[in-house]
Amino acid sequence: MDPAARVDLAPESGTLQVLPVHGIGEISPGDDLAGILASCAPLRHGDVLVVTQKVVSKAEGRLVPVDESDPAARRRLAESESVRVLRRRGDLVITETRHGFVCANAGVDMSNVAHGWAALLPVDPDRSARRLRDGIRARSGVEVAVIVSDTFGRAWRQGVTDIAIGCAGVAAVVDLRGEHDALGRPLVATEICVADEIAGAADLVMGKATGIAAAVVRGVDPALFRRSSVAAEIVRSPAEDLFR
Amino acid sequence: MDPAARVDLAPESGTLQVLPVHGIGEISPGDDLAGILASCAPLRHGDVLVVTQKVVSKAEGRLVPVDESDPAARRRLAESESVRVLRRRGDLVITETRHGFVCANAGVDMSNVAHGWAALLPVDPDRSARRLRDGIRARSGVEVAVIVSDTFGRAWRQGVTDIAIGCAGVAAVVDLRGEHDALGRPLVATEICVADEIAGAADLVMGKATGIAAAVVRGVDPALFRRSSVAAEIVRSPAEDLFR
Repeated sequence: MDPAARVDLAPESGTLQVLPVHGIGEISPGDDLAGILASCAPLRHGDVLVVTQKVVSKAEGRLVPVDESDPAARRRLAESESVRVLRRRGDLVITETRHGFVCANAGVDMSNVAHGWAALLPVDPDRSARRLRDGIRARSGVEVAVIVSDTFGRAWRQGVTDIAIGCAGVAAVVDLRGEHDALGRPLVATEICVADEIAGAADLVMGKATGIAAAVVRGVDPALFRRSSVAAEIVRSPAEDLFR
Repeated sequence: MDPAARVDLAPESGTLQVLPVHGIGEISPGDDLAGILASCAPLRHGDVLVVTQKVVSKAEGRLVPVDESDPAARRRLAESESVRVLRRRGDLVITETRHGFVCANAGVDMSNVAHGWAALLPVDPDRSARRLRDGIRARSGVEVAVIVSDTFGRAWRQGVTDIAIGCAGVAAVVDLRGEHDALGRPLVATEICVADEIAGAADLVMGKATGIAAAVVRGVDPALFRRSSVAAEIVRSPAEDLFR
């Protein structure tokens, strides 16, 4: 990215802005989500567009019927979307999805979905992000990064936060090893998951109840833009994971 | 908070801004951190000020000498700050601190600290946040919320993110149960850890290497301001935790 463009990105140097995207409306399978986002979102060169998994899954037709009167139906559906069950408590299961994500119910979700239906995670959320990025560039000529976000719980900490499950054009994890701290000491093992921090920032302007399904994050350090970075990099391999 | 004030907080309705705080400089034990922040940070009524644990620990004198030539010295120090060791790998330990936080090396950190010294977590980070909030109000008359942030790793996911270890004036976890989604269905079990999302957003303008130790988050939904919320609410009790 042209360093000179940064002045235009952030009104005050180093300032970040997070803008909600209004007017996306209800999304159905087959909808041109890139076109809808290109027309609704106030996008500029160098922005990061965060899109929630739910609208991506709907546009991609990742919807399956589910019997809502059967409390175990979602659990069975979640297990069918998983490669491994880590924990069970009643009808809640914490599983590892095919992508390697560890989350509740394999990300199978019935909120903001029509009665009798559940949304599954996209088959390949990094590909979803890449297609949205390419589609927005093709329609509007604007070069943005795209993050597909979802809402996950965490071990040890109460409450959910939005994190990145798909990523195109922006670094997922930034390795600061080899750089130095403010006192000149080498930084060790400081890999920052900026994609998760950006997804969480976007959630702050969305709110679960208001139906805002995307946000624009403006002013992200241009040094974090990467052509080839994917959210799959965030998945810690089971062999390296002390808690799987 | 006066709802009419919101127009002033966020130039565009629903927009969030994150501003780095410059000029804090090197902090030493006994420094008047609230006074320094009140003079350096461009604070307005309703802002959330995020302050990194490192400067809070330094101001509070939470520094101990450590023999840097002994690779096990930090591990022993971390164990002395912990109530439980969850995992070990070489000289890395994942422990539960006295506060209940689960993190690497009990949060004992030697980066951005003088050679031969390590910084411990504040004894009571919620009290630290409350004192900063009260001190800023006393010095400048501005009512802000304060989050003390730290950089933690996560189970299952690569990379660290900034999260809240102390909190004053803003909700740590928001319970949306009882509200409805955009299609009118009741939301179940949607407790959002907004304090962690705010801390992560603040990190995006800090950068580990640049020595910016605080950020102002402007435009946070006034509904999230709570007089009595504390980050201790984020600690999941071991009895409820499926991964401890």
